[in-house]
Amino acid sequence: MRAVKLYGARDVRVDDVPMPTIREDGDAIIKLAAACVCGSDLWAYRGIDPITDPITVGHEYCGVVQEVGPAVRHVKPGDFVVGSFFASDGTCEICRSGYPSGCIHRRPMGAENCQAEYLRVPLADGTLVATPELPDADLIPSLLAASDVLGTGWFAAKAAEVGPGKTVAVVGDGAVGLLGILAAKQLGAERIIAMSRHQPRQQLAREFGATDIVTERGDEGVARIKDLTHGYGAHSTLEAVGTQEAMLQAIRATRRGGHVGFVGVQHGVAIPGDELFFSQVHLHGGPAPVRAHLPELIDLIMSRTINPGRVFDLELPFDQAAEAYAAMDERRAIKALLTFDKE
Amino acid sequence: MRAVKLYGARDVRVDDVPMPTIREDGDAIIKLAAACVCGSDLWAYRGIDPITDPITVGHEYCGVVQEVGPAVRHVKPGDFVVGSFFASDGTCEICRSGYPSGCIHRRPMGAENCQAEYLRVPLADGTLVATPELPDADLIPSLLAASDVLGTGWFAAKAAEVGPGKTVAVVGDGAVGLLGILAAKQLGAERIIAMSRHQPRQQLAREFGATDIVTERGDEGVARIKDLTHGYGAHSTLEAVGTQEAMLQAIRATRRGGHVGFVGVQHGVAIPGDELFFSQVHLHGGPAPVRAHLPELIDLIMSRTINPGRVFDLELPFDQAAEAYAAMDERRAIKALLTFDKE
Repeated sequence: MRAVKLYGARDVRVDDVPMPTIREDGDAIIKLAAACVCGSDLWAYRGIDPITDPITVGHEYCGVVQEVGPAVRHVKPGDFVVGSFFASDGTCEICRSGYPSGCIHRRPMGAENCQAEYLRVPLADGTLVATPELPDADLIPSLLAASDVLGTGWFAAKAAEVGPGKTVAVVGDGAVGLLGILAAKQLGAERIIAMSRHQPRQQLAREFGATDIVTERGDEGVARIKDLTHGYGAHSTLEAVGTQEAMLQAIRATRRGGHVGFVGVQHGVAIPGDELFFSQVHLHGGPAPVRAHLPELIDLIMSRTINPGRVFDLELPFDQAAEAYAAMDERRAIKALLTFDKE
Repeated sequence: MRAVKLYGARDVRVDDVPMPTIREDGDAIIKLAAACVCGSDLWAYRGIDPITDPITVGHEYCGVVQEVGPAVRHVKPGDFVVGSFFASDGTCEICRSGYPSGCIHRRPMGAENCQAEYLRVPLADGTLVATPELPDADLIPSLLAASDVLGTGWFAAKAAEVGPGKTVAVVGDGAVGLLGILAAKQLGAERIIAMSRHQPRQQLAREFGATDIVTERGDEGVARIKDLTHGYGAHSTLEAVGTQEAMLQAIRATRRGGHVGFVGVQHGVAIPGDELFFSQVHLHGGPAPVRAHLPELIDLIMSRTINPGRVFDLELPFDQAAEAYAAMDERRAIKALLTFDKE
């Protein structure tokens, strides 16, 4: 089968690799419906760590179960399933408390080939959620989005305690930030302020529910948020970037007693304790517990209540994975979908 | 009247100063029932900032209203009242959301003379809570504790989402940490682990409800907490110190998805964003919104359900304020009460 491999900085290739097989009793093998590139894949693509042997990339997936190990009970061959970037047992105290991405037996799906034709998923019972019926083809992008960027944007909104009557600010206009806007809208936010200076992303932000756009960044951006909220700041702020500037912008844009949900994978961030203390905000984030949100998200997608697949603004045949990475790296695309030939 | 003044590092004096007077329509003048020294007063005492002119110290207070300004409606002369270290209007959006210490019109009471015989309290209607009747003399220490250390320990427990069935770890064995233990017990925690290596404080921790004592610090202390919680870590951790070591200890002692309530005034703390991200904890703290908790705390004290005044293990006449500071600085006392002569 074919799989994407990263050979070095900006060196993406599609290789022939062996088919995955059941290795543990709890495994499932999935034929992927499509593949995609995540903004967080770009860290490796840009060469944050040296690469000697080619590495697997990607961690988002959905598709049809082909085969399951003898211990699997909750999914069966023929089911269409969606999972998260962490496989999780679904039974430990952390999973049961709503944090499957913190499962004590979790497995990073980035270690498998998620940008590939077939995928092995360990801990299938705890990890995979089946759709009630086979989805129409046009729903595949949305279901794939649920696997990470929607699930992560949704968690950011939940972590920021978004709800009716609240004013929400969103820092970051990538797929996660944009889907954080969709989540905030769905969760009943009264006002949603998108921080973006990119016209096509502003347009999608508005489509997803943004009521205001702020183009300023840093302290100027914070001042604009304060202006829009009678000087108080937002009730809830979503941070979907992962840099020092974005984190400080999120904390400073939030009112005292308000909530910051941060889901940008943190790079080089050091939060000043005294500033956080006097900000009086709640701060919560991390790798999103997507599995916990999947049942609700799948319902919303299958009923066509939400259309998160709109974040895919570039669709390419699987063999053109290198171009998908390049387009996202150069911000020519928000998010790239890789499709397989129809059988 | 007499008031404590700090003339320089470790130079505490009791001066004669003018009586406070009504300066704004919302003011109240209180005759203080007793005074006390806070752990956070020790930062100034130890000379963290150079002192040229003598400064006021202290920010905890309770006593009997003597006089009120023409705009005051909710308290009257003769009432026994308790307030917080931030005066607050009680009407802004931040106050109404439960964060009076973040009030947009807040006034730091440290700017007034709280270690004194009489005190001016601005924004009296929003700030002061009257007891239902005059308290017995033996309740004065507990009511004074409610003004800050109890209110702050209580907020730490609330911020850490302490509740029935939860395992709680407490970092810091000062008055706030100890009263965080009392709060955790009162809020229904199943297990309360006090981190302390001081025998008299361990004893008070047990009296307040600690079920386990951990004497190790840093990574060893974290390992002990994990041992005591099947490897998961505490559900809720209270940080009542304010140093880098204490903050990291609190974050690391908490399970994924758990809650850290931090109330130690932060000094030189920088929280690594990546560690916080992958810890998946909730982090919330800051200057405690004591005013919001006062009605409940006063009820618990007046009904003798709790006895937070037990943290005062040194009682001295007001004129011996210097010795009160020295005893706390040298950790000979947990918290010092300064008493006035009876009328």
